[in-house]
Parts: sequence; C-alpha cells; structure tokens
Amino acid sequence: MRVEFRLSGSGGQGLLLAGIALAEAAILEGMNATQTQSYGPEARGGSSKSEVVVSDGEIDYPKAVDPDYLVALSADAYRLFAPAMGEGLVIVDSSVPRLEEVRARTVALPMIETASSVLGRSVAANMVALGALVGLSRVVPRGSVERAVAARAPEGSADLNLRALAEGFRLAEIEASRKSFRETDWDE
Amino acid sequence: MRVEFRLSGSGGQGLLLAGIALAEAAILEGMNATQTQSYGPEARGGSSKSEVVVSDGEIDYPKAVDPDYLVALSADAYRLFAPAMGEGLVIVDSSVPRLEEVRARTVALPMIETASSVLGRSVAANMVALGALVGLSRVVPRGSVERAVAARAPEGSADLNLRALAEGFRLAEIEASRKSFRETDWDE
Repeated sequence: MRVEFRLSGSGGQGLLLAGIALAEAAILEGMNATQTQSYGPEARGGSSKSEVVVSDGEIDYPKAVDPDYLVALSADAYRLFAPAMGEGLVIVDSSVPRLEEVRARTVALPMIETASSVLGRSVAANMVALGALVGLSRVVPRGSVERAVAARAPEGSADLNLRALAEGFRLAEIEASRKSFRETDWDE
Repeated sequence: MRVEFRLSGSGGQGLLLAGIALAEAAILEGMNATQTQSYGPEARGGSSKSEVVVSDGEIDYPKAVDPDYLVALSADAYRLFAPAMGEGLVIVDSSVPRLEEVRARTVALPMIETASSVLGRSVAANMVALGALVGLSRVVPRGSVERAVAARAPEGSADLNLRALAEGFRLAEIEASRKSFRETDWDE
C-alpha cells in the first residue's frame, strides 16, 4: 500500500504544515511516511506544493509520482497540477474555475470560504483542506491527525487549527452523504 | 551546483524546522530547493532525518544521495549516517563518541551544550546546528537564514531561535579560525 498526496495552492496558505501533520499522523499509525516541500520557479511564481507519501512498506521515492489525491487551493495550482491527474481524486476549492481538460474525479469544496466565514481566518484553509482530505481518503483515523495538528500548530494557534480541521471533516461528511444520495438515485 | 544536506539527530530535536529554514533561505537567494522529512522505522526508533537539496538548476531527485554536509546531533544518528559519508563534511555534536570507521572530514562542535548552557534551552540545539552548518558551508548568506528562521519560528520563539542561530555562527567562526591557525602551523 502506497498512497500519494499532493497539496497545492499559493505560497502562504500553510500547505507545508498540512503536509507535515498528515505525515506525522501516518507515523502515529505505525506507517512509514515522507513529506517533501519543493521550492522552485513555480514557488517563486506564487504556487506552492507539499507532497506526502504514506506506505506500510519502505518508501524508495519520496515524491508523488501519480498522486492518489490532489488538493488545489488556488486557480494557478489547479491549472498546474489537475490536468495530469489520472485515477486519483481532485479536491479543489469551490472558488476555482474548473477546466474541461481535467478528467479526474473532482470534488469541489468551499474550503477557503469556510475558513473565512466560519472561522474568521482565511489562513486556516490549510487545515480545512487537511480535514477534508483525511475525511475523504480515510488514510489515517481522525484522532491521529488531530494529535499531529495539535503537536505541530504554532504556539497559540492549536485551537483555531483544530476547529478548522473539524470543519474540513464536516465538509467531507457532507460530500459523502451527497454522494450516497446520488448513488441511490442511480441505483433506483 | 547541487548541494546536499542531511540533518540528523533524535526525534524532537527540531531538525525539520532547521531543514525548512535552510531551504527557504536558499529560495530567498533565488535558488531552487527541496526539503524532505522521512519518517520510518528509524524515526520510530528515535532517530530523525531531515534533508535539504539546494541547486541553481532543476532538482530531479529531492533526497540527499551523497550528502555534502551531515549534521549529527545524536550518537545513534552519527552511527547511522556518518560511516557512509564520502567527500562531505560531518558536523557532529561534541557529546557524541566518535567512530574510527568514519573516514569523512569531521568537525565536532558543542552544539547541544551551547544551547543548554548559553541559551538555557537544549531544544535550541537545532538552531545552533543550523548556524554552524551555514557558517561552515556558506551556501546561503547569514541574513537570509536569519530571515527564514524569523519567519518560521513558532510564535513567541523567534528571539530564542535567532540567538541560538547566532551562537551556531559563532561556533563556525571559532572553528574556522582554529583551522587557519592549524594550517599556519603546518606551513611554517
């Protein structure tokens, strides 16, 4: 079992912290994990990319080769990474204009708006995204990612981060119930 | 130009933050960088490894293949990583028992003791190590790594981190002056 995650958005959205928390949650579950942050021309251009690989075996190559999950929190990141997605799932912010050329299964969630309107802090969108990602992928239990976030959150921000994470799980639950509703429609 | 860094020690020594700050300092200088944290059996066994690759070109493989610099803040990490060092420089904490089988050039610095006795916080050894590493490698200017540390330090800890970083630069300066003294001895 090897699961690859790519978290993308604009610099300053805190995707590095989200990636670290995801990797550390996997470790709490006894899995192996790598977390990679690549800085380069695209980073300077404003896009940021944080990758996590989780495995129950050894991890030879630490980067995402064919991501199982892509989170895109900005239009630039979506345009850059979503078209290459194959079998994996794209989790894109609702504010991002969708592209026809993206063939991958896609879930659009109001992550930034939730951070802004419910939590009053758009910078918490990284944790909303993390909650949604874990809620949809179920790669680690909720409790483990909460422990990892609490441990890594900058001093004084653990509470905000955990509330944002909970909002992300809520978005994932809403999406899951919508999906089962649609599937019921099809079956009947 | 591709320079590889491996920062190793025990979990909880904050080497992830040191790696992130080093990578971000390189970005401030217009270089490319990757930062990788690998968690696995050795992480669970207590050792931690954070890697940074800095390049003025594209970075194909984000991990350290043949590190130019190894920092080892624990005996376990030294035993695990130092024997494989080739042309690179080993920067090891003075508290660590040395191994004969390590052939690489080695500088032993009292990083943990400096953090404990000068700063009163042994957890700041990561920043002392970062200062020493940058002071010896000169891969990025001091000002850039200070900016990166100030930006990434957990809330309320920027001052301690910057003081620890300065102590690391001081250790590197002492080492450099010792070295030139020894070289003078040889020449005469």
